[in-house]
Amino acid sequence: MDFPIGIFDSGIGGLTVYSAIRRRLPGNRILYLGDTARVPYGTKSTQTIIKYSIENTAFLLRRGVRLVVVACNTSSAVSLPSLQSQVPVPVVGVIRPGAASAVSRSRSRRIGVLGTEATIRSQAYLRALKELDPNVRVFMQACPLFVPLVEEGWLDHDVTRRVASIYLGGMRTHDIDTLVLGCTHYPLIKGAIADALELDGGGRVDVIDSADAAADQVADMATAVDGGAGLSEFFVTDSAARFRRVAELFLGKLRGTVTEVDVVHD
Amino acid sequence: MDFPIGIFDSGIGGLTVYSAIRRRLPGNRILYLGDTARVPYGTKSTQTIIKYSIENTAFLLRRGVRLVVVACNTSSAVSLPSLQSQVPVPVVGVIRPGAASAVSRSRSRRIGVLGTEATIRSQAYLRALKELDPNVRVFMQACPLFVPLVEEGWLDHDVTRRVASIYLGGMRTHDIDTLVLGCTHYPLIKGAIADALELDGGGRVDVIDSADAAADQVADMATAVDGGAGLSEFFVTDSAARFRRVAELFLGKLRGTVTEVDVVHD
Repeated sequence: MDFPIGIFDSGIGGLTVYSAIRRRLPGNRILYLGDTARVPYGTKSTQTIIKYSIENTAFLLRRGVRLVVVACNTSSAVSLPSLQSQVPVPVVGVIRPGAASAVSRSRSRRIGVLGTEATIRSQAYLRALKELDPNVRVFMQACPLFVPLVEEGWLDHDVTRRVASIYLGGMRTHDIDTLVLGCTHYPLIKGAIADALELDGGGRVDVIDSADAAADQVADMATAVDGGAGLSEFFVTDSAARFRRVAELFLGKLRGTVTEVDVVHD
Repeated sequence: MDFPIGIFDSGIGGLTVYSAIRRRLPGNRILYLGDTARVPYGTKSTQTIIKYSIENTAFLLRRGVRLVVVACNTSSAVSLPSLQSQVPVPVVGVIRPGAASAVSRSRSRRIGVLGTEATIRSQAYLRALKELDPNVRVFMQACPLFVPLVEEGWLDHDVTRRVASIYLGGMRTHDIDTLVLGCTHYPLIKGAIADALELDGGGRVDVIDSADAAADQVADMATAVDGGAGLSEFFVTDSAARFRRVAELFLGKLRGTVTEVDVVHD
């Protein structure tokens, strides 16, 4: 029995989603595609993000995956309806699981969302949160410099703290009790983000990473394969060596092959 | 008589090169291609940058250009030899003109170069400078956050000043008298860069933007078309509206049509 799972992301950030799924489904084969030649998606138009997402999904489908996970928040926010209407297998995004987790944890019903320019512009989190609880108040903030700062490796750095404090200046005044990190890169600078919200040690604001919530949903929908170590195969559209190097920032040692592919002419 | 000139760039930064050429050749038709769907190039691999540069050049050649200008420093640094060996018309990059301008102005023969990760890694400026003057000393620094900061519009901002001061910390100790801004975005934060070098009002360090130097070379090589306003046509691979909006940061009112195109399936 085989139930391979396909995951795609604009780059390496989606590896947090990969890890969360791997922990829940140790026996399944997992194919991960990182579109590193066209990263980032967050500053691009809706039309371009949809086109790239369809190409990525088609690549995974040709390799026989039975379920597709859109690990990238931007792509989930913008392209999920298009994918779900065109693809013959289930497609899971990270927005709805993240929103559900936020709604279940928030007591004050005042929820903040951080994301890329495209994710915030799409209002996908707003819609998902309002569908789950029409009385929730949602405060959103685009943080375009967070991804470049993470990719520069400035995780615990005064510049990152200063940028976080600028982006979160408005958020501090909204008295939220739950904050959704709506981009796979942001958990890596969770410290700077929490400090910018002037959280005291008690953790007054619950910070939510959608990766775990999405992995729970995937585990519910997939047929688990028993008996041992499922194969992981990583595909990238730019350099395999660079991917492996930066990936180890996210998850330590990468167990699996990394292959360079061309999703457009595949 | 027609002598159309093709310019390509990874995005909008190359519009500084476009403007400099337009001033020198007011009557020629100019086609500008901004690969905004795949920007940035500076953090990608050599192989991917060459592939994109060839696709961009092919797009311009199909539209009959008689000369191709590579306005992007990263693409000039990495792909110029490949392009020049494959393309039936002259191809002009920005590296050599920028290097020539630096060598002609430097008295101390100590020259600094700032650029993207890929431009610095390629050592293209180092080679060009050494070819022009084997005795020159060259100090190079990659500045990956400058492009995102400019695109965020933080041109005169404390964060940009702080980042510049970090990147240029080493450069300050090298006692250079000439600095090449090896990326089309950098002239927009020239103030922060100059301050980070702790220049006094006298302008001890000559700051060089390759756009003017490249435009001089193009004007020498192209056949000028007399009599009036040459047409400008802009092509982009992502949203035309966003291009027009951000472009006005670079050059004010954009005179010409902007068309969305697909260079891969063109």
